[in-house]
Amino acid sequence: MQKRSSWLTIPDDSDFSLGNLPYGIFSRPQGVPGVGVAIGEYVIDLAMAYQKGLFADYPLAKNVFQSAVLNDFIAIGPSYWSFIRKVLQDQLCDRSSRLAQWASVLLVKQELVRLHLPLRIGNYTDFYSSREHAIQVGRLFRPERPLMPNWEHLPVAYHGRASSVVVSNTPIYRPRGQVCPHPSEGPVMQPTQELDYELELAFVVGKDSPLGAPVPVERAEEYMFGALLFNDWSARDLQRWEYQPLGPFTSKNFASTVSPWVVTMEALSACRTPAPVQSPLPLPYLTQAKRLGFDIHLFLSIQPSDEQAYPVAHTNASFLYWTVSQQVAHHTISGCNLQIGDLLATGTISGPEPGMEGCLLEATKGGTRAVPLRDGLVRRYLEDGDRVVFTGYFQGTEGRVGFGTAEGEVHPPFQLP
Amino acid sequence: MQKRSSWLTIPDDSDFSLGNLPYGIFSRPQGVPGVGVAIGEYVIDLAMAYQKGLFADYPLAKNVFQSAVLNDFIAIGPSYWSFIRKVLQDQLCDRSSRLAQWASVLLVKQELVRLHLPLRIGNYTDFYSSREHAIQVGRLFRPERPLMPNWEHLPVAYHGRASSVVVSNTPIYRPRGQVCPHPSEGPVMQPTQELDYELELAFVVGKDSPLGAPVPVERAEEYMFGALLFNDWSARDLQRWEYQPLGPFTSKNFASTVSPWVVTMEALSACRTPAPVQSPLPLPYLTQAKRLGFDIHLFLSIQPSDEQAYPVAHTNASFLYWTVSQQVAHHTISGCNLQIGDLLATGTISGPEPGMEGCLLEATKGGTRAVPLRDGLVRRYLEDGDRVVFTGYFQGTEGRVGFGTAEGEVHPPFQLP
Repeated sequence: MQKRSSWLTIPDDSDFSLGNLPYGIFSRPQGVPGVGVAIGEYVIDLAMAYQKGLFADYPLAKNVFQSAVLNDFIAIGPSYWSFIRKVLQDQLCDRSSRLAQWASVLLVKQELVRLHLPLRIGNYTDFYSSREHAIQVGRLFRPERPLMPNWEHLPVAYHGRASSVVVSNTPIYRPRGQVCPHPSEGPVMQPTQELDYELELAFVVGKDSPLGAPVPVERAEEYMFGALLFNDWSARDLQRWEYQPLGPFTSKNFASTVSPWVVTMEALSACRTPAPVQSPLPLPYLTQAKRLGFDIHLFLSIQPSDEQAYPVAHTNASFLYWTVSQQVAHHTISGCNLQIGDLLATGTISGPEPGMEGCLLEATKGGTRAVPLRDGLVRRYLEDGDRVVFTGYFQGTEGRVGFGTAEGEVHPPFQLP
Repeated sequence: MQKRSSWLTIPDDSDFSLGNLPYGIFSRPQGVPGVGVAIGEYVIDLAMAYQKGLFADYPLAKNVFQSAVLNDFIAIGPSYWSFIRKVLQDQLCDRSSRLAQWASVLLVKQELVRLHLPLRIGNYTDFYSSREHAIQVGRLFRPERPLMPNWEHLPVAYHGRASSVVVSNTPIYRPRGQVCPHPSEGPVMQPTQELDYELELAFVVGKDSPLGAPVPVERAEEYMFGALLFNDWSARDLQRWEYQPLGPFTSKNFASTVSPWVVTMEALSACRTPAPVQSPLPLPYLTQAKRLGFDIHLFLSIQPSDEQAYPVAHTNASFLYWTVSQQVAHHTISGCNLQIGDLLATGTISGPEPGMEGCLLEATKGGTRAVPLRDGLVRRYLEDGDRVVFTGYFQGTEGRVGFGTAEGEVHPPFQLP
């Protein structure tokens, strides 16, 4: 495809090129939240664009962009998503379009708006789909058996807490909980000493699936709307003590941070790449004719207070062993239903080489080897005041396609009453 | 308190006495769902009662009873809940009241209405708070270590799947999933051969708690609206293969059944009873001056197709080792927020004696000893066509206080496409 050009200036290093057009929820100062699309340094106000007739060729019963969440828009379905995308791309390249004509009211500088949690998230599931992560973490928790026997046969997952998913820049309060460093002395309750991040993507469900009916693996992507950056903050000392036998609970449920922008599956179609070969072969319900992952570069940095941000890891979503289609097929094989707005997170995305670890637990080998930020400044786990910043993008034919940032600053624990 | 009497005939064996007044969502034939209160054999139509001015002494901005879920009503807060309760009790005992006057339109026979899932459930957490259950099940999964070291120190829990919580009488399709009966041969995917129920109560959150702020154990009950009967259907063969290391997933996420009626904390106040003494003593954040449980009789029966219902177990909620206050305090110690409509289920409620097992896994010692239903009819696990019926009540000074039933029939698995 020839690269089109817009009448709007879009910086080359912007995550929000013509090929992206991710969705989010924004508000102007004193304004109410509504649906927006990021382009370059701007947000396109879709509720107002709807009123100005930009989308009149595909009439709806109501303006689904006048909403504090994307769910109603998503529910209209994929032909409408494609229609909106095409209208915006066409009009961004046509100096005589309505969008250009009304640019002064339809476009708002991103620096002037507030970005909100973009979804009503009914359910959030966290997978464990990076083989590198599973092995390296498994070795720390269970040296004798890092990879459980089930891991290569199914995409292991657990149900996470939906209420505490927050948008980028929401403060993260250091969680308290039970830890048991000296088993003979019993547990104590204290603020976590091992606060960690987990670098993930979260896929957003775009279509309800009926209760009782498994989604076939070859149709699974029809149920996806797009993806976000996702930080599954974790308290490792709490996790170590509580996780047997029912899995992580307070060690994970205090917060998860998402990027404000959902990049659509249509935009992501330009970065598909073969997923790692699977051996042993999975069972037929997890077998795809063609297994595709996403060639998305993922970066994480730590910015201590009064310091610059120091890059800590650079990994890639293409390392993931299980595909999102396999995750959906497994999630629903029991008959579990999916709902619009649900999140299916990948689990920590690590890579095969040093510097590709998606969490500190891995990078520090369980806290035993500090990660250097600069001369004289290291981290084993996160300290109060640390800001953790995730970014991710791929370079498409029409420019960069990224998520903005998923970031959060660690605050001291809430005062107890 | 002297027992009041109503102008309405309330059968002695009804779960829905004057002392109960549980909330649910009902619809008349061709009608829209709205809030109702069960009394004897009737439902009181609260949306219409509001219109008729029964609650005019406490005006609201809108009729919160015109809703397909209880969440908006719950959000008004406990003084309003008490007000409604008092109005209904008074008017049910006053032959000249508006309720009596308008009885022909405000009261609908329960047999004529459809009952719906009463809540928008944002999050569902399942605890594991019966010591008897934890030991007996732990012995089957881990004979060498039935009770994990953490169990006596914290109320173990996991996040469950909210999307698949269904109201009583919703069909339960036998789930498929991976099982691995012969490790050397690898797993297979098939309909579960070990379908089980779990007899539980689920407490309904009545007040949001802010993200980051633990709820103190002595204030935890302020965050509760009421309780439901709860069946956490489980596929044991799937669970055995998948649960390490992140806990149950497809073995639980296919369905959970709730009773249509939420019994309020105010109604339940009449059945409080000291909870089992805890040894070792829990940490201070889990320590209550007075630990109270609920003396609620719980019954479960299995009704195979073309058969009567056979009683299988009779247990009591008072056996629970961890109180709901301790569950709330632990759930939020990390800063996890609670939201109105969230469910906190107790976990399977078993008792110390045979016949008190809240699930078949326990009653059959892992499927090794069949449970007799009648001569010549036994169950190890559930078969297609089996209907599982939970009931529960206590006898209050103003009559029986119960939940109605939480029941569901096992259907063959969905046809795969």
